[in-house]
Amino acid sequence: MQVGKPVLYSYFRSSCTWRVRIALALKGIDYETVPVNLIKDGGQQFSKEFQTLNPMKQVPALKIDGITIGQSLAIIEYLEETRPTPRLLPQDPQKKAIVRMISDLIASGIQPLQNLSVLKQVGEGKQLPWAQEAITSGFNALEQILRSTAGKYCVGDEVSMADLCLVPQVANAERFKVDLSHYPTICQINKALLALEAFQVSHPSRQPDTPAELRA
Amino acid sequence: MQVGKPVLYSYFRSSCTWRVRIALALKGIDYETVPVNLIKDGGQQFSKEFQTLNPMKQVPALKIDGITIGQSLAIIEYLEETRPTPRLLPQDPQKKAIVRMISDLIASGIQPLQNLSVLKQVGEGKQLPWAQEAITSGFNALEQILRSTAGKYCVGDEVSMADLCLVPQVANAERFKVDLSHYPTICQINKALLALEAFQVSHPSRQPDTPAELRA
Repeated sequence: MQVGKPVLYSYFRSSCTWRVRIALALKGIDYETVPVNLIKDGGQQFSKEFQTLNPMKQVPALKIDGITIGQSLAIIEYLEETRPTPRLLPQDPQKKAIVRMISDLIASGIQPLQNLSVLKQVGEGKQLPWAQEAITSGFNALEQILRSTAGKYCVGDEVSMADLCLVPQVANAERFKVDLSHYPTICQINKALLALEAFQVSHPSRQPDTPAELRA
Repeated sequence: MQVGKPVLYSYFRSSCTWRVRIALALKGIDYETVPVNLIKDGGQQFSKEFQTLNPMKQVPALKIDGITIGQSLAIIEYLEETRPTPRLLPQDPQKKAIVRMISDLIASGIQPLQNLSVLKQVGEGKQLPWAQEAITSGFNALEQILRSTAGKYCVGDEVSMADLCLVPQVANAERFKVDLSHYPTICQINKALLALEAFQVSHPSRQPDTPAELRA
């Protein structure tokens, strides 16, 4: 039921969208990007047109196979079911549970607390410490978990959905000047992942809407 | 690889734990509850013992089949894979994507912004409007989505993971005095779900650690 190329509503800097871009790249799915600038015009995600598409007024949203899906992990799980190669979830149910736990830890436990709309509410001057607290608190847990689950990547030696969440979150940590020296396991996995092509082509510095001064 | 009864680390009022309690009830899985009081003693989730079990210092955590899983949706997905009857995810990949999208909308887009640890950071006096804003903003989107996906429940006429997220979130909305009259679809589904036994036995008012004055 493929109806034309999938369309990804994306913002170059959105860490949640980056997760999906990595999945699309790993699975070799050709797609079109429609940039949604979260800053310009007071935020293009608030336009009537975009709200009809995704009532949450957030990126990413993916138009695919005749439906539109919001929420990055729901999108990745759908891609995994309909385009299973290469796997982003291990076959073993227990390993799969660990992958989902790490993904949710980042997607529910860290990112939402430091995203653009929350920081707006926190108010000027308090944003940096607020974001740092959210990331530090999550990374303390994550580092401890990864010490027992990691091989080359978050869970063993195969790239999984957890890795798709990790790399964009580390990039956010760097933007918010979090001291990463306390997280050797996170840093090592991040480095290994950034060496992979799918993580490079999907990088915020290489998107159609990346401003010239931030381009790689 | 069942190793004794599953053990659920739970707090009666935790909406994320309630999601898992509903799943366990629906699937008829017998389990033990270990209460973790998020308020008492400065928060029992911060104890050394609990941190070893769940570095995120959050409930729920489920010990099952020899592993411990944190994050409510990861737990529910694991139960779904290993105890598939009755289904909590539709077989059709597109419907399944919608169920996961709604679940993630609540689990990543609403609940984390109004949970206990974030409200502590927001500070006295600002907590109620902060929580109301988070829930209202999410429910505006959710109401719009449910209008096109709902039957008797969130997605069609079968109870799904999305419903396990909805009911506890509506209870939070009530606690934070959100005006629910704007959300007729949400209210109608919530009412239909609360009539089901699995949603009743798992209710915060009927847990081993529910204080006497809040008991049903």
